[in-house]
Amino acid sequence: MTARTGGTSMTDDNTVFIGSKPASVYVQAVAAQFESGSTAVVIKARGKAISKAVDVAEIVRRRQVRDAEVADISIGTEEVVAEDGRTLRVSSMAIVLSLRTAQDDTT
Amino acid sequence: MTARTGGTSMTDDNTVFIGSKPASVYVQAVAAQFESGSTAVVIKARGKAISKAVDVAEIVRRRQVRDAEVADISIGTEEVVAEDGRTLRVSSMAIVLSLRTAQDDTT
Repeated sequence: MTARTGGTSMTDDNTVFIGSKPASVYVQAVAAQFESGSTAVVIKARGKAISKAVDVAEIVRRRQVRDAEVADISIGTEEVVAEDGRTLRVSSMAIVLSLRTAQDDTT
Repeated sequence: MTARTGGTSMTDDNTVFIGSKPASVYVQAVAAQFESGSTAVVIKARGKAISKAVDVAEIVRRRQVRDAEVADISIGTEEVVAEDGRTLRVSSMAIVLSLRTAQDDTT
């Protein structure tokens, strides 16, 4: 497992964490995962980065990896401990993009 | 159909559009829809308001309407014509919250 650093574009297995960089950075990271042979990539985000996660998924699907489709979307709430020790709740989201199989192409 | 004004909290049938007001305003709008007898409410957002839509869904589900669960989440891209006539693409999201039936409660 790769260490995760706040705000950077780290990939962990087939997962791309959305941070504070421009959406294009994460679009390339997701496309690279597919190019390296992954058949599914998970795009994860928390808080305000959730909007960017949707942008990334849509750009990948529409422009970069035409065979990719949204396989699943889930939302939740995660607890984060702030520097002052307080526990904050933040919304989270995971979007699974997966390659269509030949059979799915007719739909 | 009710006219939709940018940035305000208009409800159209069982749909709540997320705009620029605080999340609590939309939480109350969704809860009011359920209180008025709706068994499902759709939370819609575009662009940066998408993160707030997830916050609203999570707050409603966790604190306001304990019987509500996420029934469906969809994302897409909408085209918006700007004032200068250019067509802009913006990400969109719809979250469907629905009341659990008694049978579902065991899951």
